[in-house]
Amino acid sequence: MTDITPILSGSRLALSRLLTQIENDTPEGRAALNDLFPHTGQAHLIGVTGAPGTGKSSLVNRLAHFYRHPPEGQAPKRVAVAAVDPSSPFTGGAVLGDRVRMRDLAGDPGVFIRSMASRGSLGGLATATAGVVQAFDAAGYEVILIETVGAGQAEVDIARLAHTTLVVEAPGLGDDIQAIKAGILEIADILVINKADRPGVEHTERALKGMLSLAHPVQRVFHHGQMMEVQTGAAQPEGPMWIPPIQKTVATEGEGIPELAEAIAEHRVYLQTSGDWERRERARLQSELFQLLQSTLVTRWQATVSDARYRQTIDRLLEREISPREAVDALLNGNG
Amino acid sequence: MTDITPILSGSRLALSRLLTQIENDTPEGRAALNDLFPHTGQAHLIGVTGAPGTGKSSLVNRLAHFYRHPPEGQAPKRVAVAAVDPSSPFTGGAVLGDRVRMRDLAGDPGVFIRSMASRGSLGGLATATAGVVQAFDAAGYEVILIETVGAGQAEVDIARLAHTTLVVEAPGLGDDIQAIKAGILEIADILVINKADRPGVEHTERALKGMLSLAHPVQRVFHHGQMMEVQTGAAQPEGPMWIPPIQKTVATEGEGIPELAEAIAEHRVYLQTSGDWERRERARLQSELFQLLQSTLVTRWQATVSDARYRQTIDRLLEREISPREAVDALLNGNG
Repeated sequence: MTDITPILSGSRLALSRLLTQIENDTPEGRAALNDLFPHTGQAHLIGVTGAPGTGKSSLVNRLAHFYRHPPEGQAPKRVAVAAVDPSSPFTGGAVLGDRVRMRDLAGDPGVFIRSMASRGSLGGLATATAGVVQAFDAAGYEVILIETVGAGQAEVDIARLAHTTLVVEAPGLGDDIQAIKAGILEIADILVINKADRPGVEHTERALKGMLSLAHPVQRVFHHGQMMEVQTGAAQPEGPMWIPPIQKTVATEGEGIPELAEAIAEHRVYLQTSGDWERRERARLQSELFQLLQSTLVTRWQATVSDARYRQTIDRLLEREISPREAVDALLNGNG
Repeated sequence: MTDITPILSGSRLALSRLLTQIENDTPEGRAALNDLFPHTGQAHLIGVTGAPGTGKSSLVNRLAHFYRHPPEGQAPKRVAVAAVDPSSPFTGGAVLGDRVRMRDLAGDPGVFIRSMASRGSLGGLATATAGVVQAFDAAGYEVILIETVGAGQAEVDIARLAHTTLVVEAPGLGDDIQAIKAGILEIADILVINKADRPGVEHTERALKGMLSLAHPVQRVFHHGQMMEVQTGAAQPEGPMWIPPIQKTVATEGEGIPELAEAIAEHRVYLQTSGDWERRERARLQSELFQLLQSTLVTRWQATVSDARYRQTIDRLLEREISPREAVDALLNGNG
């Protein structure tokens, strides 16, 4: 058993050890997560995703720095970062080219940064990320930034963990690239154009606006916490609504960061007043429950079937004596 | 029951209807796949993946055209294309901007093109793609091109279906973009630089070569069908080996297509002489079996639990009375 007291009282060493256990899915890690769970639910989970080359890591660094050193009158917040790289499933090694973090973050006890890479299974990575985020939450980190590389299903799954999702773009990545972003745009609560000092920023902004209206020929609005579609020109629904704003930043210079933090804060207020916060919590926990159910069912089933029988079934499949579905039926019904 | 005779005898209408049933995972679709399975295993499955904007669709069109109109002395082959778009999980609609196919392909009875989009679950898409590919195979298509958009786990899962995987690059997509390709490079059997008439092609080629050597500081070689790593300068192993070649194409002009087709043919010979063909078949069918097992286990379990009990468990989870893993234990052990 892992004693969770040191985690709750803020020991970085205990937290770091626990994160390793969570990533390796050990019995100790699982037991600790069970014990820590009642202490979760306080943090604001912020997903940051987008194509490579958009400067997500710098942006995350600057946001973390902002929360640690807020404008006068605001209290600094404890910040944790989970930097997830699902792009390299074969090596198991993270291809995190820009993992070099700002020096003042590295020495700050109110900041905890963890890099995670896929270890073969994507489901495993999403589950591990959920566990790591819960550990941060229980350990009292008030803001948790979940950073993912790329723009595929993996990012979407991980973005589902967040309350507020930032989709980061940058000028000059080519029109072609942007042409497929419609899918990822749909998960965006806030659109960020980073590297906004580069040529072509107006073009990117126009493209994003165009794509938003193209992807949503009707305007997406939030009404009483539910996404609704309203024909442009139609009467607006009553109650709060959220239209993803476009924020411009130059993360390397710190430009636009206070405004971005302000948009994030506004989104949090929106979530809480609209009832979306609870709805997202429910969706998030349901999704995590389903992932765990699935992997547990497979693990339990695997314990009931012998390697010899499994191999024999594979052989019959390879000989094309039985189809994949017939093989499944044979294995599950015990007549294989 | 779906009568498979029309499929085997080449009816496009019957095939088209079956593909819809496979995509919707109907009992008829499943039964037909069982019956068709003994007729599969003849086709050469070619995966084509890479970032958006690299011109994959044009390349696939040109390859299909080449196989239909080969150089004198070679027989034309029947070609099927499964164009898979996992990038838009929320709408369920394909964002296939360049789905406009060449006119001469559209009218050719020896070509069958099917566009597929994600419908929420990625596992579902991989399973559906596997089924569609099996239907093409049984229907006598000799070359099956599996085209995917993007560069994430989804593409990797779908690429696992192929015997030969082409990873497509293009000049001018930015150095940053390329910096994450190490993961996807690992699945490449052949690297294609499309749009090779664009400025920067030498740079892209240099970058790819550099990345290959960076990602693999030792040279990757195939030896008796297994991937081995050999320190550069060390003695070469005996037997066949495969080092991913870099092929330059201008798909819109048809340039480099015969050479690319030649490289694909060489890879096929390599697979067959090295024993890798069988090994990949085994891995492919095992992976498909596992996906099916997982979804079947979940479906069977779902039939045993009442909605009320599931909702009640979710509620306790939301109240943080129990952790996600405790919720799973409760649901699976019947004491929830």
